[in-house]
Amino acid sequence: MKHFSLTSMRYDGTFSILDQTLLPHKTKWIECTTVTDLIDCIQRLAIRGAPAIGISASVLLALRAEKGDSPDKIHNQANQLISARPTAVNLRNNLHSLIELISSPGYPHSLINRAEQILEEDIILCSTIATLGASLLQPSSRVLTHCNTGSLATAGMGTAMAIINHASKNDDSLFVWVNETRPLLQGARLTAWECVKLGIDHAIICDSAAASIMQEGKVDIILVGSDRIAANGDFANKIGTYSLAVNARYHGIPFYVAAPHTTIDHHCKGGKHIPIEVRDECEIKGTQGGGGSYTWAPPESSAYNPAFDITPATLVSGYILDTGIISSDDVWKKEWWKG
Amino acid sequence: MKHFSLTSMRYDGTFSILDQTLLPHKTKWIECTTVTDLIDCIQRLAIRGAPAIGISASVLLALRAEKGDSPDKIHNQANQLISARPTAVNLRNNLHSLIELISSPGYPHSLINRAEQILEEDIILCSTIATLGASLLQPSSRVLTHCNTGSLATAGMGTAMAIINHASKNDDSLFVWVNETRPLLQGARLTAWECVKLGIDHAIICDSAAASIMQEGKVDIILVGSDRIAANGDFANKIGTYSLAVNARYHGIPFYVAAPHTTIDHHCKGGKHIPIEVRDECEIKGTQGGGGSYTWAPPESSAYNPAFDITPATLVSGYILDTGIISSDDVWKKEWWKG
Repeated sequence: MKHFSLTSMRYDGTFSILDQTLLPHKTKWIECTTVTDLIDCIQRLAIRGAPAIGISASVLLALRAEKGDSPDKIHNQANQLISARPTAVNLRNNLHSLIELISSPGYPHSLINRAEQILEEDIILCSTIATLGASLLQPSSRVLTHCNTGSLATAGMGTAMAIINHASKNDDSLFVWVNETRPLLQGARLTAWECVKLGIDHAIICDSAAASIMQEGKVDIILVGSDRIAANGDFANKIGTYSLAVNARYHGIPFYVAAPHTTIDHHCKGGKHIPIEVRDECEIKGTQGGGGSYTWAPPESSAYNPAFDITPATLVSGYILDTGIISSDDVWKKEWWKG
Repeated sequence: MKHFSLTSMRYDGTFSILDQTLLPHKTKWIECTTVTDLIDCIQRLAIRGAPAIGISASVLLALRAEKGDSPDKIHNQANQLISARPTAVNLRNNLHSLIELISSPGYPHSLINRAEQILEEDIILCSTIATLGASLLQPSSRVLTHCNTGSLATAGMGTAMAIINHASKNDDSLFVWVNETRPLLQGARLTAWECVKLGIDHAIICDSAAASIMQEGKVDIILVGSDRIAANGDFANKIGTYSLAVNARYHGIPFYVAAPHTTIDHHCKGGKHIPIEVRDECEIKGTQGGGGSYTWAPPESSAYNPAFDITPATLVSGYILDTGIISSDDVWKKEWWKG
């Protein structure tokens, strides 16, 4: 496989993942040789972001094939990887496209070529989304975003964050409200870190303050990513997205989803069919990471920790895909639904 | 002054405040002798909750008078205390009622009597609110609440939390969703701690998950407290309350404010006239407390930290006051607006 170096992963003869749980305090790379290594990284959120997870799994599987794992073993390992994060669809779609090549005459090269193609395509998808989405932003826009959708979450410059980055290059006065994104603080840790690196003016807020800032007229547009878009336009994204969408509607603020078209799951009829991962309550009862570990809730208390929520299509102003900016009505009409 | 012992403060010859920043990990009492001591406790949120703050300031001022401070000095100290927390109105109202007695013939006993009366009245107010509010709960209700409104926040059993506590005594299946209440986690630390002590079934959630739980039909009623209710029914409460109110309206869920009638500020015409305290960004960029200290955001990032938000009267189903459960229309009609 060709060597590559992305923000969240690299291959230089060894495949390594940047441990995002330690950002912004520490930069630590984790060697991933086995499927078990990568599943651990995915489940701990050392790597996260639907596109980045899908790419990392494709690369690892291709490397396993290159090292001589049998087609049967590859198939089995692909299924293990798919189970690691049930909500995001990119992981499943990418690996299914690799599984289809297991019995091809070109194995294992066919898998390696496909993994390289997935990675390279994602970079182009991000770039196209950035250009298309930036056209929606007025000068001096105040954008609110949730979770992390930048270069840490994709092979390229990201989805929602790529739009922000692209627009900021021609607009010094663009401003970003960064939702901290409890419980794992992907906004306060990762999006803020990317904003600092990219020189984008920003302020971190508590997720629950977003509504008040909308009420004060300080938000022009909301841009979020997605882990899976159903055929009717309902979509899953990091917990807290739905609350933003309801508040955006109440305040008349445009609410856009930015994602590669590969995030659309045409087998999934609506949001209620998207499985939601419920994670360990320790993530709610305290925090862990590069800066330390701290439990603040009483040990006797329970906590409920759904990692994602579902936003209905009716609350979405539009979908910024690499194939164009479309409405929820258009989602049904696109060719890929017929597949 | 008579000795007393409450959850959040006590007087046994020495006036002490329970340091709520260290709960639930540590139980540490702080001696408060001077106004400076108490202002530090209020600003650090060692004591918090609009009624508790107002009572603590009244007690301290009365003790200063008992120790021989001149009326002029008392007046000056009262003004310093009023500035310590601008949003809550109880502090200001309680101290104004003490200031009125400074030139009375009975000084300093008049102040001591008034402080004792404020404390005793609050216990009764809480009890009345609890009884009235509990009548709104159906059997097996799933109540969602924000911040802390229990015995830590008042002299009595609390406001919203007192209702929950009262109802739970006759209903084992009552369940409470506890919003963690970022940034200072009064829900995850203090309300959860009170639920454990009271044996009330509960689960802590991220504030941003509340909307998703409403969407799933798992919330029957929302009960919150208030730091100040304006004459038109708009009210200030902990940041995140407004987002809950918008989501409650969207999902058709009853949204009630529980507060003593002393929380109503009849001099304040509407929410836009309530001053909102903006606190240090370090509270957003990390967390500090009894379990440890941890900064997770990049040092270069800014954060915006309004401690309260304003919910318009139009989103309130009703106000559970000690004087009755009223609508926002009734707020205008009550006698106290004419004062």
